[in-house]
Amino acid sequence: MYDTAEALDVDVIGEQMYGLVKELYPICRSITGNGVRHTLERISQQIPISVHEVASGTTVFDWTVPREWNIKNAYIITPEGERIAEFRKHNLHVLNYSVPVHKKVTLDKLKQHLYTLPDHPDWIPYRTSYYKEAWGFCISHNQLQSLSEGEYEVFVDATLEAGHLSYGELFIQGETSEEVLFSCHVCHPSLCNDNLSGIALTTQLADYLSSRQMRYSYRFLFIPGTIGSITWLALNEGKTRNIKHGIVVTCVGDGGKFSYKKSRRGSAEIDRAVLHVLGHSCEGFHEIDFYPYGYDERQYCSPGFNLAVGSLSRSSHGQFPEYHTSADNLDLVKPQYLKESYETYIEVIEVIENNKTYINLNPKCEPQLGKRGLYSNVGAPSGSKISEMALLWVLNLSDGQHDLLAIAERSGESFRDIRNAAQALLSCDLLKEVTGGPFA
Amino acid sequence: MYDTAEALDVDVIGEQMYGLVKELYPICRSITGNGVRHTLERISQQIPISVHEVASGTTVFDWTVPREWNIKNAYIITPEGERIAEFRKHNLHVLNYSVPVHKKVTLDKLKQHLYTLPDHPDWIPYRTSYYKEAWGFCISHNQLQSLSEGEYEVFVDATLEAGHLSYGELFIQGETSEEVLFSCHVCHPSLCNDNLSGIALTTQLADYLSSRQMRYSYRFLFIPGTIGSITWLALNEGKTRNIKHGIVVTCVGDGGKFSYKKSRRGSAEIDRAVLHVLGHSCEGFHEIDFYPYGYDERQYCSPGFNLAVGSLSRSSHGQFPEYHTSADNLDLVKPQYLKESYETYIEVIEVIENNKTYINLNPKCEPQLGKRGLYSNVGAPSGSKISEMALLWVLNLSDGQHDLLAIAERSGESFRDIRNAAQALLSCDLLKEVTGGPFA
Amino acid sequence: MYDTAEALDVDVIGEQMYGLVKELYPICRSITGNGVRHTLERISQQIPISVHEVASGTTVFDWTVPREWNIKNAYIITPEGERIAEFRKHNLHVLNYSVPVHKKVTLDKLKQHLYTLPDHPDWIPYRTSYYKEAWGFCISHNQLQSLSEGEYEVFVDATLEAGHLSYGELFIQGETSEEVLFSCHVCHPSLCNDNLSGIALTTQLADYLSSRQMRYSYRFLFIPGTIGSITWLALNEGKTRNIKHGIVVTCVGDGGKFSYKKSRRGSAEIDRAVLHVLGHSCEGFHEIDFYPYGYDERQYCSPGFNLAVGSLSRSSHGQFPEYHTSADNLDLVKPQYLKESYETYIEVIEVIENNKTYINLNPKCEPQLGKRGLYSNVGAPSGSKISEMALLWVLNLSDGQHDLLAIAERSGESFRDIRNAAQALLSCDLLKEVTGGPFA
Repeated sequence: MYDTAEALDVDVIGEQMYGLVKELYPICRSITGNGVRHTLERISQQIPISVHEVASGTTVFDWTVPREWNIKNAYIITPEGERIAEFRKHNLHVLNYSVPVHKKVTLDKLKQHLYTLPDHPDWIPYRTSYYKEAWGFCISHNQLQSLSEGEYEVFVDATLEAGHLSYGELFIQGETSEEVLFSCHVCHPSLCNDNLSGIALTTQLADYLSSRQMRYSYRFLFIPGTIGSITWLALNEGKTRNIKHGIVVTCVGDGGKFSYKKSRRGSAEIDRAVLHVLGHSCEGFHEIDFYPYGYDERQYCSPGFNLAVGSLSRSSHGQFPEYHTSADNLDLVKPQYLKESYETYIEVIEVIENNKTYINLNPKCEPQLGKRGLYSNVGAPSGSKISEMALLWVLNLSDGQHDLLAIAERSGESFRDIRNAAQALLSCDLLKEVTGGPFA
Repeated sequence: MYDTAEALDVDVIGEQMYGLVKELYPICRSITGNGVRHTLERISQQIPISVHEVASGTTVFDWTVPREWNIKNAYIITPEGERIAEFRKHNLHVLNYSVPVHKKVTLDKLKQHLYTLPDHPDWIPYRTSYYKEAWGFCISHNQLQSLSEGEYEVFVDATLEAGHLSYGELFIQGETSEEVLFSCHVCHPSLCNDNLSGIALTTQLADYLSSRQMRYSYRFLFIPGTIGSITWLALNEGKTRNIKHGIVVTCVGDGGKFSYKKSRRGSAEIDRAVLHVLGHSCEGFHEIDFYPYGYDERQYCSPGFNLAVGSLSRSSHGQFPEYHTSADNLDLVKPQYLKESYETYIEVIEVIENNKTYINLNPKCEPQLGKRGLYSNVGAPSGSKISEMALLWVLNLSDGQHDLLAIAERSGESFRDIRNAAQALLSCDLLKEVTGGPFA
Repeated sequence: MYDTAEALDVDVIGEQMYGLVKELYPICRSITGNGVRHTLERISQQIPISVHEVASGTTVFDWTVPREWNIKNAYIITPEGERIAEFRKHNLHVLNYSVPVHKKVTLDKLKQHLYTLPDHPDWIPYRTSYYKEAWGFCISHNQLQSLSEGEYEVFVDATLEAGHLSYGELFIQGETSEEVLFSCHVCHPSLCNDNLSGIALTTQLADYLSSRQMRYSYRFLFIPGTIGSITWLALNEGKTRNIKHGIVVTCVGDGGKFSYKKSRRGSAEIDRAVLHVLGHSCEGFHEIDFYPYGYDERQYCSPGFNLAVGSLSRSSHGQFPEYHTSADNLDLVKPQYLKESYETYIEVIEVIENNKTYINLNPKCEPQLGKRGLYSNVGAPSGSKISEMALLWVLNLSDGQHDLLAIAERSGESFRDIRNAAQALLSCDLLKEVTGGPFA
């Protein structure tokens, strides 16, 4: 059996993930363009992803891959000659996918193209206009209020031309062709929790799993949000049949409580596995019913696919004040939080890898555990660390109708204890695996 | 689609319903007799009901249509020569269905025929004796206590003879032969909330619907309680197969919170529709499980019929102190309350008329709503008032397994928003109606 | 119908059960040996049980019937020459199933064979070592602490030899071959609540039922815990198919609230019956989900049998401080508590004996109850004590899909009221029994 109990130097891993976030932070990503390419290049230094390029104009279901956007610089020159909202100082200053512009405008006209956050007057908002041509700048509300009347020069040195949508993919073959999907988005510019934390954690998971023998195959996608998952699904429709479990990885670097947004199915094995792990390892967490908004689970869970894909985060989509602002920066994300998230993901993998269904080979009355050294006798210290209650639960519920996760759920014991008990019983020939299982 | 958003001058309608209650209040109704006939006559001035007369002695399932009761006058003359408990002053004074009597009795003997309400010493109770021959009077408890010893003359000038049971019926043909039933009882004498409010609201609904194109056919019954519904069901058994939804209309004129007593089925579409409407429009309401007592839902929900018929009231059966007393009068019922009830019934009709099942024609990933003008872009005010979340919910759940009401229930959005979203998506050819539907 | 309303002089019965507890208290029972035989002999003075003897070495599923243990005496002689831990003074002093020993040991060595309860320094614990050869003594913690250094003489005059496992059984034939099982364990030495109270109550139930005409057959087992039920199941596998309901009887003599541990099935008819009775007769009780530990329900509910067997106690397994100590004595158990437990068991039998499924022969609308004397008329006192609501519920839900217990559950009425109503309706030919029923 796959066992994560082997020593993982998770403190080092927390720092390593944070280091990747830090390196990727300055890059201006979008749904297409060189920022994504540079990001994928950096990821491929750690794990052997393949990078795919899909040409602008390609039809992907109801959508069309857009023109590619690249930007060199952008700024505003005030009547006083000051250069503000400079892209090179903070890439959130430019409306993401802004068309090129270079002209002089009045303050009134300029204001129609400025975005601020009145409630957080020091922060710069993150705004996009992918599918409607527009130009614009994002600045702090304080700066907006300091602008004087007069003529402003606006300059966006960007290109929006036929090109490609880029995404990264890594597939690790396991014992079976059934797959576990981890999907993260790579389209946000200088934002740390959403989504660099997800990139870093996904990379680390892939790194960890690539050297291990696993039951399932694992697929890792590094894709632009929405259009990326739509593109991948459209071009890989046949592969979706193998996806048995999946998680959209995002917002895993802040200090919020864990949140799990269930798949559209609501009680898929991945939903049960994540909720079990959170229930046994956390001081409170948020269980969120599926809703058709958020991240790429929207596409994976569209009714034509209805994949068993949920989303496991710390603070969830839109539920933290720094969301989509310049405050989602290197201070919000911490190595410790990334490490905890990583451990939680590893626990979930532990559950799905080991969640099998067994049948009790001695189903009539209990077997005599004592003669097999599985039961503590009076005065004798127990010969094993196996929980007696876990042994009895596994024996009692291994009727072919309960997988180990169901036994853990019903008994209240941890999956790990249940699985250890099953392993001990297997080694005494008291259990036999049922292929297929009740949830297959 | 049927839409109630068209202006309804509901304030005028509240006054109109109250006017009908006021006109009908003085009439002495019972389960048979001229009081019912006069009531039906007045209703037929507003809506084209047909009046049915069923002969005494007719067998209706386990019951027999009783003899017809008519009354001219009734009173008691005290030893002091005072005329009390006079029918012409208040028709509750006589035990409803009292046999004729004219004799002199002692106070002791008289008391065996007097009914009072010790807890409400000023009120006159309402009592009946339909199936056991008896005579009696109902008076205030204060009056009872003021009676002196001596000889009393009792006089009930009534007839109990072979005749007919009268009821009114209106059928409005819709696009389909599937029917919605509204049933109210017309057998109570001077009682306003129970049941004149029900008569007024049913009349108003029929009036409103008679001029509209509806999906369902609508049937309105104005019947005496218990024996009336039994008679109708016995004589119209074949028609019951078409009844898809039904509501017993009563106690809709007082100021209590809304109450909905579910059908015996418990989660029939009408149950879900009413509970959804109450959940989205009220500050608290009572959800009552079916129980085999109350009004005519007892008969519609008997196991041999088990129709999807619930009962939507303000204060419910027996749950207000004025119930079956002279205090259920023109002060208890108000135009404003009738109006609110009417609006709630109209909302329910709106739900069942529009509750259809659709299939998403672009089920793989989300369709691109922006290019269809259904999605707000940055800086651009939304081109429609359609809720984006409602659009996404309808698309996500239109898999042929969810009708619009189920989508509203799961999403928490109002039925109206969900239905508007469905309409917008239909007009973009993104949805197709599934005939039959999951709940058909 | 079977009716327990007949006078039971339950106060006398409480004293009678307590008397049996008192008589059996001094006997040193174990899972085999003469203590069990003497106990069965005493029981057979009250009810005609047959005593079975199963030879040591017999294979019973995964187990082997152990050698028989018998003990004459046991004690320790202190360095001061005092005889302590004397078996004849309290049979808990010896480790149950202790092998014979007679030697001198130091205090240090002795301590490895002594068991005490530091949290209850005056009490003697109850300990066993059935399947691992060992010798030992149980004493109060105070006594342990008073022991001085020096040489101790230990003496256990016991035999552990090929012999038999003894158990008692009584089968009472009813109208049908479907059985109700009552099982109690007879292997504990001087412990009153666990398990003499169970022996006394089971004996009393058998005594009561043996003279009555019952629908079900009844089987009573007086067996040693674990190995006894395993033995019975192994030797009587074919009979288990007839067991429709069962209860493990134990801990029914203390003053705790009632506890019901459900069968593994969780909502078997016996589970519903017991929970209904407790819900209608107690001030609070504990409803416990099945878990694979406790008493013999562990074996009856092993997945190869999965019988509908729960356990109805006062304080439950291990949940009272006196459990498995010398404080589980004649003061803990009281006639009054035994009596209440007995009444509760009788109520449960009343439910399962009478829980049948009927079909309403007048399913279309209500039948006219008045003309059958089942409905109170105005002014006339009701001709029966039958609850009108119970009559209406039985009529409404007797559609072949609800047994009387289901009607009681849904209506909130007591089973007794529902059953009386059904009886009244049966006698009016308004109901017919459905053989089979929804839960058969």
